[in-house]
Amino acid sequence: MNNVKNSSIAVVGAGIAGVTTAFHLARRGARVTLVDDGGFGQATAASAGIIAPWVSSSEGGFYEAYAAGGNYYPEFLSQLEALGIPELGYRRSGALMVSADAAEVDAVEERIAGRVRDAGPVAGTLQRVDGARARELFPALAPGLSGLFVSGGGRVDGRVLRDAALSGAIAFGARHVVDSVIGLDRSGAGWRIRTTTADLDVDAVVVAAGARVTDLLGRLDLRVGVSPQRGQIVHLELRGVNTSPWPTLHPFADHYMTPFDGGRIAVGATRETGSGFDARVTAAGQLSVLRNAVEIAPGLADATVLETRVGIRPMADGQLPLVGRVPGTDGLWLVAGYGAGGLTMGPLLGDAVARDVLGEAAPELAAFTVAVERRSRGGEA
Amino acid sequence: MNNVKNSSIAVVGAGIAGVTTAFHLARRGARVTLVDDGGFGQATAASAGIIAPWVSSSEGGFYEAYAAGGNYYPEFLSQLEALGIPELGYRRSGALMVSADAAEVDAVEERIAGRVRDAGPVAGTLQRVDGARARELFPALAPGLSGLFVSGGGRVDGRVLRDAALSGAIAFGARHVVDSVIGLDRSGAGWRIRTTTADLDVDAVVVAAGARVTDLLGRLDLRVGVSPQRGQIVHLELRGVNTSPWPTLHPFADHYMTPFDGGRIAVGATRETGSGFDARVTAAGQLSVLRNAVEIAPGLADATVLETRVGIRPMADGQLPLVGRVPGTDGLWLVAGYGAGGLTMGPLLGDAVARDVLGEAAPELAAFTVAVERRSRGGEA
Amino acid sequence: MNNVKNSSIAVVGAGIAGVTTAFHLARRGARVTLVDDGGFGQATAASAGIIAPWVSSSEGGFYEAYAAGGNYYPEFLSQLEALGIPELGYRRSGALMVSADAAEVDAVEERIAGRVRDAGPVAGTLQRVDGARARELFPALAPGLSGLFVSGGGRVDGRVLRDAALSGAIAFGARHVVDSVIGLDRSGAGWRIRTTTADLDVDAVVVAAGARVTDLLGRLDLRVGVSPQRGQIVHLELRGVNTSPWPTLHPFADHYMTPFDGGRIAVGATRETGSGFDARVTAAGQLSVLRNAVEIAPGLADATVLETRVGIRPMADGQLPLVGRVPGTDGLWLVAGYGAGGLTMGPLLGDAVARDVLGEAAPELAAFTVAVERRSRGGEA
Amino acid sequence: MNNVKNSSIAVVGAGIAGVTTAFHLARRGARVTLVDDGGFGQATAASAGIIAPWVSSSEGGFYEAYAAGGNYYPEFLSQLEALGIPELGYRRSGALMVSADAAEVDAVEERIAGRVRDAGPVAGTLQRVDGARARELFPALAPGLSGLFVSGGGRVDGRVLRDAALSGAIAFGARHVVDSVIGLDRSGAGWRIRTTTADLDVDAVVVAAGARVTDLLGRLDLRVGVSPQRGQIVHLELRGVNTSPWPTLHPFADHYMTPFDGGRIAVGATRETGSGFDARVTAAGQLSVLRNAVEIAPGLADATVLETRVGIRPMADGQLPLVGRVPGTDGLWLVAGYGAGGLTMGPLLGDAVARDVLGEAAPELAAFTVAVERRSRGGEA
Repeated sequence: MNNVKNSSIAVVGAGIAGVTTAFHLARRGARVTLVDDGGFGQATAASAGIIAPWVSSSEGGFYEAYAAGGNYYPEFLSQLEALGIPELGYRRSGALMVSADAAEVDAVEERIAGRVRDAGPVAGTLQRVDGARARELFPALAPGLSGLFVSGGGRVDGRVLRDAALSGAIAFGARHVVDSVIGLDRSGAGWRIRTTTADLDVDAVVVAAGARVTDLLGRLDLRVGVSPQRGQIVHLELRGVNTSPWPTLHPFADHYMTPFDGGRIAVGATRETGSGFDARVTAAGQLSVLRNAVEIAPGLADATVLETRVGIRPMADGQLPLVGRVPGTDGLWLVAGYGAGGLTMGPLLGDAVARDVLGEAAPELAAFTVAVERRSRGGEA
Repeated sequence: MNNVKNSSIAVVGAGIAGVTTAFHLARRGARVTLVDDGGFGQATAASAGIIAPWVSSSEGGFYEAYAAGGNYYPEFLSQLEALGIPELGYRRSGALMVSADAAEVDAVEERIAGRVRDAGPVAGTLQRVDGARARELFPALAPGLSGLFVSGGGRVDGRVLRDAALSGAIAFGARHVVDSVIGLDRSGAGWRIRTTTADLDVDAVVVAAGARVTDLLGRLDLRVGVSPQRGQIVHLELRGVNTSPWPTLHPFADHYMTPFDGGRIAVGATRETGSGFDARVTAAGQLSVLRNAVEIAPGLADATVLETRVGIRPMADGQLPLVGRVPGTDGLWLVAGYGAGGLTMGPLLGDAVARDVLGEAAPELAAFTVAVERRSRGGEA
Repeated sequence: MNNVKNSSIAVVGAGIAGVTTAFHLARRGARVTLVDDGGFGQATAASAGIIAPWVSSSEGGFYEAYAAGGNYYPEFLSQLEALGIPELGYRRSGALMVSADAAEVDAVEERIAGRVRDAGPVAGTLQRVDGARARELFPALAPGLSGLFVSGGGRVDGRVLRDAALSGAIAFGARHVVDSVIGLDRSGAGWRIRTTTADLDVDAVVVAAGARVTDLLGRLDLRVGVSPQRGQIVHLELRGVNTSPWPTLHPFADHYMTPFDGGRIAVGATRETGSGFDARVTAAGQLSVLRNAVEIAPGLADATVLETRVGIRPMADGQLPLVGRVPGTDGLWLVAGYGAGGLTMGPLLGDAVARDVLGEAAPELAAFTVAVERRSRGGEA
Repeated sequence: MNNVKNSSIAVVGAGIAGVTTAFHLARRGARVTLVDDGGFGQATAASAGIIAPWVSSSEGGFYEAYAAGGNYYPEFLSQLEALGIPELGYRRSGALMVSADAAEVDAVEERIAGRVRDAGPVAGTLQRVDGARARELFPALAPGLSGLFVSGGGRVDGRVLRDAALSGAIAFGARHVVDSVIGLDRSGAGWRIRTTTADLDVDAVVVAAGARVTDLLGRLDLRVGVSPQRGQIVHLELRGVNTSPWPTLHPFADHYMTPFDGGRIAVGATRETGSGFDARVTAAGQLSVLRNAVEIAPGLADATVLETRVGIRPMADGQLPLVGRVPGTDGLWLVAGYGAGGLTMGPLLGDAVARDVLGEAAPELAAFTVAVERRSRGGEA
């Protein structure tokens, strides 16, 4: 857009993808309206974010984007702090990978070592730890597990960071509307967004509505490969234990543990494909999460069960999320499909999308494609 | 439809409008799928239903429909009981209208008397009550209020009745799918409903999705005059008080009180137009509901605050709800816009719509129009 | 006491033991004050009561008392109904015992058959059921389990029955004080109970405070053998399933399932000795309850987890609860140590204690002893 | 005690009084057991602490103790931070006193000015603020209110600070037992504390159990003048508003507002004398808190109601709390009666009591008396 100051942009969705995009747009001077349906099941609200891409099992392009997101974190956090927002839900206490199988640790060490070295100071150091040291770091751990400790790993509470980014966007002048989008149409050179209470005419739209993007783009007869995947995460508490210095725990498996301050430890998560938006806590889900947790960390057996959070993650059909301009449609951007990686990748890619919308260079987006399929209507309605 | 047994019908929405329609379709032998997005803010789930149309301030066609709904209640309840569903959340303990102004009571008595008489046994009797008698009936009441007691008034817990009707539909063979509709299109002579996990091909669709009908019909480029209106309802408890025989209380105003069993009393409700789907409990809403409650019924001052339920009611633009076949579109029915009257009208009109869908006579629908506006697309997307 | 109408009696504790005693005292004309500390962890409030003593593993005197309690239930329920209290949380839908081991079923059948026959109509009939029939009765059950069905088994929601009995006591004139007892002393021929806000002088005291009786009697330098035992019970929901006709389920083990109306099923419970009054939901407790539930009834895997209730049961050191007059101390009665059997035994024994306090015959109490140990003070304070 | 390292001390109660005493004992090398009944209604857990004694209406000795507590805060916080406990729930964002009456502001300014000056840097500066400036500081404020801003005012979340102090005590070797005290007796030269699960023999006991001290000391036939007072506090949320820099708000009245991070604002509180331990949220309490809040700060009208916390404060009969050695009884200390001032005074006086127990100088305690009345037993039990 030629005149950034006068361009008006709507961002639909207030999970991590939406709030970071709105934040970066607003701090660059754009007039932004963030439309948030206030709905249930937001993945960000349920997430116990691990900011340690180097220990993930991801490969290739996803890893590149993931690692770039991790590198960007210190800068993003300082942007928020500079606005006088002191509580960001973030702490850097390391990431601990454990296994009962030394050969597995060897193999992973080989894979991880270069990553940590390449990432530089943000990743800190990689240390091989024996069982005793592992239990010093994470005292609830079962004996007999050794592994790897990456000192630069961080963790973040998705709700807190989301609200901080939202506050930051508002501090830069963004408008926040809590309402549901019930129409999305071309209007002259721009777009008209209809909500239940008003129409909003803008120059550009960023659809960042998690797994609901399929629904929103469906209104434009566009299909995108993003599906909902339910995650159930249980929050436990060890009263009187200072869990702040505990690292995140990764037993080389899907599940993980994220210690927060004040004795709180999030354990999870289920990865329930085909769940739709059915954001329930289920007997089987709760059982599976608790069984894994108590097996790896018997010290959690007597922890208090505080709550279970449920998030509906947007899973991309392909390896990579769909981030960038929607091809063939003017003024429409998509940020979707982060899966479980949104808290790590969101802040950087939100900045890249903001730049792209405003006509600035956004080389980070080159790696992503936004595959959409145009479908014809099923006849006259 | 020619062959009821083979016709397949989707009902979208599992509030009172949807579950009763599905129930009546299923008990008449249709193959029914009830699609329920499991979402938040369902008006039925929050409602403290008063089944006493005769004391309402409604007039004209709305009153006729409202009263017909009340007349039908005993039959509907016995249909569910006959299926072995014993708990329906319903109790018939009368409706008490009170005012500090005797002239107001006179005026209302004149209006009500004929209604109660015309309704017959279902409405019971109308009695003028003085302040002392009013406080015998509803002991928490302020002194100095006299009024009218209609003995046939009932109350129902929306959640319980909804779940009972859902169980009834399932007992008759209906299928219940918890998923979000992300596409609604013509498919041959019928319809294809796409959810996040599957496609569903049916002969007919009944859209009964509360205030979300604007969103669903918008996909078909149809506009309907239904808007969301937030209602906040506070549940109080008087421990050790047998509130089962207490009547519902109507201070000739928007707010009301609905006693349930076991000391629980629902007081409400706000009527917040322009709320969108923002299903929050707000300071102003909570304040207004509690202020009204404690003023009329000081005996509630020391009651325990148990919870606040929030429902997003579907308000029709006109006086009447939109119930019936969508004109100009084959195989599409709408049940929407009940406002605060869904628990009273839903069971009867759900039956009428079921008959209409199945090609049987449904004279109750003659009073209703389903006004839809066809809009042209805002250009190429 | 010579003059029932003028005797004043305090009942301390408002779990099932206290409210039923207060109810029976009040309906016999005594002036009763029920003092309730409103505390946490009440076993009654957490209980998912099974009223089917015939299927229990109890023996001897405990079984006699248990069975007598079951026989009395219909009468107790009708006393409450007669007061216009219609909702008692009770339903009689049978008890189903299951096992994978036919020999175990044989053995149990032998033990149970006589009990059911002796109990008469209240217990209904005993039927041997094969796996198919068992799954008809309790559709969520695993295949391959056969067992025994006792048609007269009932279930009751402890909270609802407790509140109904409390309402009944109040209807008969009892006073309900929510306050903590901070002193219990002889005063003339009677007792003085001090709470934080008032002193209460009465002729007799019934201490019915669950596991807290050790604390209260300790003030009188009396020791009783009652200890707290934590029970964690998870409430699940199968939406759209009419669970009202489902029987309670007993897999010949400590744990059990109690279906309520509206799709709700309570599964439990842990039996955690040494828990003190630490009424937390723990990871290990939740895990153990869910593991047992899903193993026996895989149809619950996708059920929604609604909540976990925690109760602190009062376990007697001996086989029998401590019910009756405290020997050697005038005007003091104890009702304690019901363990998991309070909902079954409480109503009958509450009546017996009420009679005993009022000087009437209470032959049911002959089987019980109230063993207290007088201890000397540990020196000058 | 002669040998600090070998002395064993029990602290009963884990509110702010107990955890700070245990913390200071443990960091001085004593063997400490903190016995915590895990009960409901703890005042600390509900408190939205304002650490700004200079703006309080207190006078005389209470003010001296209150101000000394405020002075000590920075040191206390750094003791915890030095242990690696980074999250203390504390922020120093100033205290804002407002009134519609300029004369009232004048009068208060006169009283406050010297206090702020005397307190030095910890209190920061005192500024007169007009209505516009007041609303800059606290944007939700009504227009037309001017007042005084004390820049050094702080606020603290009672739960977070309590858990941090508990973690600190444990880090220094304290033992934490969650169980109820059911006996407190002399045992040789020391004390025997009986809980439901164990006996604990110690050299000294500090009773710091809030309003429950009357109950505990009653076992020793000691009466103390401390009573429960209920406080209901409502937590609101302004989404997207960075409330971290907002000051606490004091409308020269009992009620107040305490902003936390992330848009959360606590408003309160009721001061309900005669409440006993009845920790309920009541209609009248909720109404009164919300009415005051919305009147002074209309910007909160649309805030979300998150929760209501209820605390039972220990109110001393006299002006001052009861802190120090119980006269006439060896080895027994009392910390009770802080009322609404415990978060401010607790950390310093906990340190003073710890020193006193360990035989070190504790001049801060000179101002306090621990008045106990010995009562004779009411006859043979």
